[in-house]
Amino acid sequence: MTLIYDKVTVIGMGLIGTSIALSIRRGGLAGQVICSDCSTNVAKAVSRLNITNQFEADPAIATKDADLVIMAVPVGAVGKLAEQIIPHMKSGAVLTDTGSTKISVLRDVSPHLREDIYWLPSHPLAGTEHSGPSAGFESLFDGRYWIVLPLDCEEVVVSKFETFVTGLGSVTERMQADYHDKVLALTSHLPHLIAYTIVGTAVDLETQLKNDVIRFSASGFRDFTRIASSDPVMWRDVFLNNDAAVLEMLQRFSEDLSYLQRAIRWQEGDKLEEIFTRTREIRRSIIDAGQD
Amino acid sequence: MTLIYDKVTVIGMGLIGTSIALSIRRGGLAGQVICSDCSTNVAKAVSRLNITNQFEADPAIATKDADLVIMAVPVGAVGKLAEQIIPHMKSGAVLTDTGSTKISVLRDVSPHLREDIYWLPSHPLAGTEHSGPSAGFESLFDGRYWIVLPLDCEEVVVSKFETFVTGLGSVTERMQADYHDKVLALTSHLPHLIAYTIVGTAVDLETQLKNDVIRFSASGFRDFTRIASSDPVMWRDVFLNNDAAVLEMLQRFSEDLSYLQRAIRWQEGDKLEEIFTRTREIRRSIIDAGQD
Repeated sequence: MTLIYDKVTVIGMGLIGTSIALSIRRGGLAGQVICSDCSTNVAKAVSRLNITNQFEADPAIATKDADLVIMAVPVGAVGKLAEQIIPHMKSGAVLTDTGSTKISVLRDVSPHLREDIYWLPSHPLAGTEHSGPSAGFESLFDGRYWIVLPLDCEEVVVSKFETFVTGLGSVTERMQADYHDKVLALTSHLPHLIAYTIVGTAVDLETQLKNDVIRFSASGFRDFTRIASSDPVMWRDVFLNNDAAVLEMLQRFSEDLSYLQRAIRWQEGDKLEEIFTRTREIRRSIIDAGQD
Repeated sequence: MTLIYDKVTVIGMGLIGTSIALSIRRGGLAGQVICSDCSTNVAKAVSRLNITNQFEADPAIATKDADLVIMAVPVGAVGKLAEQIIPHMKSGAVLTDTGSTKISVLRDVSPHLREDIYWLPSHPLAGTEHSGPSAGFESLFDGRYWIVLPLDCEEVVVSKFETFVTGLGSVTERMQADYHDKVLALTSHLPHLIAYTIVGTAVDLETQLKNDVIRFSASGFRDFTRIASSDPVMWRDVFLNNDAAVLEMLQRFSEDLSYLQRAIRWQEGDKLEEIFTRTREIRRSIIDAGQD
């Protein structure tokens, strides 16, 4: 048990925010954890979890006196939240977020920054298809990457935050915003978009066929439905805020899909087999990298 | 332990064929199991597994005197194999296959059929991303659907085969070839095609970005790489032989993807959220259907 910050405030008690609060408690990383959420339903659910010293609906009040403030809300809500809370933060405090898009978060938060607080955006590469406070669990971040954007923060401030993140179970990695958004567009955002699409295609099938697609879903489709059951508002915001990188990767994907489509139509088995053989290698690389 | 057939021959000792042989042994479903594969490497691997009373490289010799012959080869190889073995089968024997496409298998086998054998095509909805004899395991079919196409077989023959399949651990389901191919196009073939595509897109990225995509693959992409590491030859044959249904489903998918792409470009968050909310329901249906 290593105390890193005296007082940590977590705003937004969804899957990520709740898991952070639980993980702070597990690691003894903070003297006090204040949780905040504007929804009264969420407030009720959080009170049942018994994870916080204090719950405060108003995020401005919740951030007062905090040494670290974590904004764990959908990326579309980060700018507005920053505007609300930054004037109430104490001098020398650290502000971070957990958003899946970083260029947009930098853009939306920057107008509200103060010279005497440290702005240290971050992104835990962790999550499940479930959402809401009851979906949170303390080991969510164990062994998962947590991207940190140091910007122009002092090294001592960045290091202290990285120690905190390591205490949550994560492996830290520093990155630039534009590179982050490009990597995530392919590893996370495009797969989610495609999964949402194919499951959406199934939704529109005639009833009998749709029922049988559900019944016989075990052969590949089921994996897509898991991904496509992720939080709709969070993902709406991701696509609206990483639109440039997602559209670029989507363009590449569509070209590659057309190539395969044409190979099927023209019965070009050699082209199919060649691509299917190359993709196997990537899987091996992931297993070798210990990411499976 | 219930003996269903005296002598069963399994041709093609990949993941499916090997698992069938192992599962027959587990259930005591046959007095004798003959395994056959034309590859000497596969023959060596099978001999190490100690699963068969007899291994016979020549499929024609392997099928002699068998009461049930199972063709567990890629669908592109089924026609040729049927031509080789059917003249050597004993009168009254049952011939089945395990192929993922059924219209093409019916088309390719029918020219070689004999009046005095029972042709009963089938398809176990089971598999993993691994292939080859060492990937097989006896519980592969437990609780998984096994589609049977009764065609014009006598009911007593179909029922006996279904009892055998149930003994392998599966749940049987009867279906028509064209409906099977349509359901599988969406539940299995299209998801595989898409997974192959997106992983292929990653293969073509510049080195640094590709390495980081592998490194940070945990956020959705990893699920696709698992699917896209499936056997290249088997899947080449699936797409070449279920081309009509796959291309039809792909057309629907592409339209739906363009709709989402346009919604992202025009920042139409309401459209995205509406689709993402509807796809969640499908997941619930799958969980309710006990398919997860």
